[in-house]
Amino acid sequence: MAIKINENYLLLKSSYLFAEVANRLAKFESENPEKKVISMGIGDVTKPLPKSVIKAFKDAVDEMGNPDTFMGYGPEHGYEFLREAIIKGDFEPLGVELDIDEIFISDGAKCDTGNFQELFSTSSKIAVTDPVYTVYVDTNVMAGRTGPMKDDGMYEGLVYLPCTAENDFEPEIPDEDIDIIYLCYPNNPTGSTLTKDQLEKFVKYARENNVLILFDAAYEKFIREDNIPHSIYEIEGAKEVAVEFRSFSKTAGFTGTRCAYCIVPKELTITDSNGDKQSLNALWDRRQTTKFNGVSYPVQKAAEAIYSPEGQKEVQENIDYYLKNAKLIRDSLTDLGLTVSGGINSPYIWVKTPNNMPSWDFFDLLLNEANIVGTPGAGFGPSGEGYFRLTAFNTYENTKEAMDRISKLSF
Amino acid sequence: MAIKINENYLLLKSSYLFAEVANRLAKFESENPEKKVISMGIGDVTKPLPKSVIKAFKDAVDEMGNPDTFMGYGPEHGYEFLREAIIKGDFEPLGVELDIDEIFISDGAKCDTGNFQELFSTSSKIAVTDPVYTVYVDTNVMAGRTGPMKDDGMYEGLVYLPCTAENDFEPEIPDEDIDIIYLCYPNNPTGSTLTKDQLEKFVKYARENNVLILFDAAYEKFIREDNIPHSIYEIEGAKEVAVEFRSFSKTAGFTGTRCAYCIVPKELTITDSNGDKQSLNALWDRRQTTKFNGVSYPVQKAAEAIYSPEGQKEVQENIDYYLKNAKLIRDSLTDLGLTVSGGINSPYIWVKTPNNMPSWDFFDLLLNEANIVGTPGAGFGPSGEGYFRLTAFNTYENTKEAMDRISKLSF
Repeated sequence: MAIKINENYLLLKSSYLFAEVANRLAKFESENPEKKVISMGIGDVTKPLPKSVIKAFKDAVDEMGNPDTFMGYGPEHGYEFLREAIIKGDFEPLGVELDIDEIFISDGAKCDTGNFQELFSTSSKIAVTDPVYTVYVDTNVMAGRTGPMKDDGMYEGLVYLPCTAENDFEPEIPDEDIDIIYLCYPNNPTGSTLTKDQLEKFVKYARENNVLILFDAAYEKFIREDNIPHSIYEIEGAKEVAVEFRSFSKTAGFTGTRCAYCIVPKELTITDSNGDKQSLNALWDRRQTTKFNGVSYPVQKAAEAIYSPEGQKEVQENIDYYLKNAKLIRDSLTDLGLTVSGGINSPYIWVKTPNNMPSWDFFDLLLNEANIVGTPGAGFGPSGEGYFRLTAFNTYENTKEAMDRISKLSF
Repeated sequence: MAIKINENYLLLKSSYLFAEVANRLAKFESENPEKKVISMGIGDVTKPLPKSVIKAFKDAVDEMGNPDTFMGYGPEHGYEFLREAIIKGDFEPLGVELDIDEIFISDGAKCDTGNFQELFSTSSKIAVTDPVYTVYVDTNVMAGRTGPMKDDGMYEGLVYLPCTAENDFEPEIPDEDIDIIYLCYPNNPTGSTLTKDQLEKFVKYARENNVLILFDAAYEKFIREDNIPHSIYEIEGAKEVAVEFRSFSKTAGFTGTRCAYCIVPKELTITDSNGDKQSLNALWDRRQTTKFNGVSYPVQKAAEAIYSPEGQKEVQENIDYYLKNAKLIRDSLTDLGLTVSGGINSPYIWVKTPNNMPSWDFFDLLLNEANIVGTPGAGFGPSGEGYFRLTAFNTYENTKEAMDRISKLSF
């Protein structure tokens, strides 16, 4: 017998988007060591962890050094103290009721959104918005649900819902049969949002067509306008059709600390081939208990501190800071005559490239001429071509300097 | 279209072993709140993190609170400082040469050994020793490689290699065609080891038969006898046929802190259906960059401190402590006339149940009569029936009390 690899991996196109960005940046920096590059590419935060989080983190490390308070294996789905804090801090204010065992703590929304597809048949038909956070696509490619990529940059077996300036970045309800749809709002990469009415349309569609919504709310803390749901469970009936993913990465600066969570409501059941109702909550619990060993105890204590009054205040200040950067980027680029969206309820600004320049060309132009790293829209899918993503996560000073540099370019 | 779950999940038998142990324990404790139960079941450490680890951990948390030293997203495969420390600390002393990009840092050997099978075709034929760490089996069940469980407790599509007192717990070379074999030495659950000659047989077999060895060395730091390899790469030619998994959980007490690593040598290639050689190192890198976001920075700094001279000394002291417990358990049970193996180069003691008592009955007996929690051998596979696993991870005082309690039982 000859051992065989999972050849679906070979269907993945080039390397992971951010790895390609990092490679081009590394090449530029090694050739231009004197240039100061400003990063507005990968969505990584720059503000340090809030003081209250640092204190809780260190106190928990101290506990680990004392035989009386040492913590070994924790529950795979996370400690109750954190799950309770999440319910009280994130959902009670929205009027959303959740049980503690509907919350699963993990080490990242990337892992959760990447792993969740394991619960479904490889024959499941998947829909994604286009452009899209590439993890949703790539993990389904690797699982064998998509087949190869066609010449137009789309995978054969995936359903793409274009989101462009033409439809104001609002995806249409799919017009073919699908099983699962990934929605991310506030959106990565476009920075767009869905109003309550718009999201209601998707929940209604999912309920009527037996479709599961995988809802990524990693950026909900950036929402500043009314009438934009922070959680899909603000929509009536969503618990029966939606899983929600959340993260502390962009809100509390946990990109290097690693903690996130997802909600799998107990109302969510899928009928198996014997006609029995299977609980997704139970299946996800089985997946996590078998393949995961819980998040580091001190990290969970650090995350709990986000929900203290001081923690909440510090987190809001950090987000306000990033949103001030976002406004600066929006205003500056608009003044230069560029077409810009996002950046109001989101740290992402989605820019139409000047003169329909291909987005990787615009990437190279910004890197070479202004020493700014952004992310080419085409990296997020075919409908991202002709767009470019900038993030508000740098310092205000660097963001300002980046805008000054761009203002000196001629397009 | 009707959404379908991955029905392979429904082939899993009952709940995960340790969850069942925890359930029975919780029931006993709620019914007997006055009894002091001694846990020698789940393999969880009790000694706190070493002082040098605590210091590095807290220093790194402080870095996260300072804008000049804050760390955001790290490399998915881990920081170079830790990968370098691993090469110098764990492999150079063995004469094993590794490149830094052959080391992948993760949040646990459970995750790594559970996820690695994703790289292979679902048609791959898998062999496991029996008894076995259940994660190897369950993750292949979930992936669809095994089919249903037969009446004898074995999954239809798996190859089982019995390890019992009859063959001195040494698995035979498989006599049917297989693609992948999981080996764990020092073994969980039997506590047995393979000598260099014994392991060489498997490497030779793998090389000659195009078989991949997934070698779990999570317990290598417990090896005290000569002629027992700490790494499979001590065997010539192993780099072309073996991946090795390691963990800081049992060595430095990281069960609640979460850090581990695996080695995927660049020599390891598999020919795909086009006749091209595919590097497992590159495939695993692609898997990790797509579905994982790296280990918490302070945790990686904590792990690095294990390799300092003080860290090494503290870790050895902790392991000596656990091995002293192991010897106490071995000697006490042997004095009681029980047949015992393991516990010399391993924290696990594998006990033959008295009078061939079924192992879950022995679990209930020990829990009810001596208030001791162990792990039933049958939970690790059919050949574990009639055996029982005790761990040396409790305190010396509790271990001693447990042995006193057992000595009062009549079997």
